Amino acid sequence: MSPFTPTDRTRVKRRPQRAVYDRAQVYSILDEGYVCHVGFVVEGRPVVIPTAYGRAGDQIYIHGSAASRMLRSLAEGIDVCVTVTLVDGVVLGRSAFHTSMNYRSVVIFGNARLVTEREEKLEALRSFTNHVIPGRWEEVRQPTDQELAATTALALPLEEVSAKVRTGGPIDDEEDYAFPVWAGVVAVRAVTGEVTPDGHVLPGIPVFDAARLKRFAR
Amino acid sequence: MSPFTPTDRTRVKRRPQRAVYDRAQVYSILDEGYVCHVGFVVEGRPVVIPTAYGRAGDQIYIHGSAASRMLRSLAEGIDVCVTVTLVDGVVLGRSAFHTSMNYRSVVIFGNARLVTEREEKLEALRSFTNHVIPGRWEEVRQPTDQELAATTALALPLEEVSAKVRTGGPIDDEEDYAFPVWAGVVAVRAVTGEVTPDGHVLPGIPVFDAARLKRFAR
Repeated sequence: MSPFTPTDRTRVKRRPQRAVYDRAQVYSILDEGYVCHVGFVVEGRPVVIPTAYGRAGDQIYIHGSAASRMLRSLAEGIDVCVTVTLVDGVVLGRSAFHTSMNYRSVVIFGNARLVTEREEKLEALRSFTNHVIPGRWEEVRQPTDQELAATTALALPLEEVSAKVRTGGPIDDEEDYAFPVWAGVVAVRAVTGEVTPDGHVLPGIPVFDAARLKRFAR
Repeated sequence: MSPFTPTDRTRVKRRPQRAVYDRAQVYSILDEGYVCHVGFVVEGRPVVIPTAYGRAGDQIYIHGSAASRMLRSLAEGIDVCVTVTLVDGVVLGRSAFHTSMNYRSVVIFGNARLVTEREEKLEALRSFTNHVIPGRWEEVRQPTDQELAATTALALPLEEVSAKVRTGGPIDDEEDYAFPVWAGVVAVRAVTGEVTPDGHVLPGIPVFDAARLKRFAR
């Protein structure tokens, strides 16, 4: 896969040593995230809405919960910035200044396109569903025409994209090593907890295996 | 605490039953989050950057990693939208359409102010540090003048704010209860993992107690 070409907007200026333009690494971050933050401009002012997404090859589909607000004022070619962030650890330096976090984030710029064709809407819904729960699309009841009409999805090409990654321990000043406080990293991660059936699961249906949620399988 | 008054921007239109304007509940979401997504407009186009933040009473301080980009073009009164999202569960309905997530999110609109006074910069740094690691500010080496000069922080009043919360199981269509697939909720949460010292921890310093990271203590 070819790496992303930095543009004026995606060239990382602050701490450029953390920049990642490698497509495989960017996609692995996108595939591990489960919420994106969609930014767009309404009457000259910024709006940032969290929503579900899914990746299909070299584009992502963004769920319409964000689109509804955008679509009131904009019909097509919506200028968006979509950001996905994973936090991997808390970094405890010996100074306040070197307190930090380990993270992986992806920033995507582009013009989102409203998905209107039936087949592509199905693909978008499949993408959202299987992004969070691999294989779920294939086992649930498929969308009706009415549901498809009520679904809004945007497609955004993965062209103008960058990632930023921080890993490792604190980068303390040499002279702070004498300061008597613990320093290092506390890893953090998302895990699954209780699995709670609703009140209508049919007899004989096995309990859902939470290990299928690959986001949490690390 | 007085609730937030909905404005044109913060009145939740989509699924208004999920709207929360209660100040205590909004603050509890902000206090539990550990990364915010800051949206701003550069040359008419949206930019969304993840960064650290802290709350101090009725305002939040946003870390300068986002500010640096904004500050290239804007000196003061920066129009921002700051969003914090916590994911609490994956909601498995019996249809693709009713696949969902449980979440809590806060959206803040306003004009961010660059923090310039020494005392307030210290307060902002204290706020970032203790937001992630309660009590850490009091045990680490305090900032030097040089570090303060290198720190950029923005202050944003908590005035135009709303939250949106989804809880509970899937809301399936009655006729789908006969569909033979498991349905319910898989809770997800962030937890701490390995605690890894850097190579310079002094003898006799106790290992950091990860339970202090209250974000992960649920």
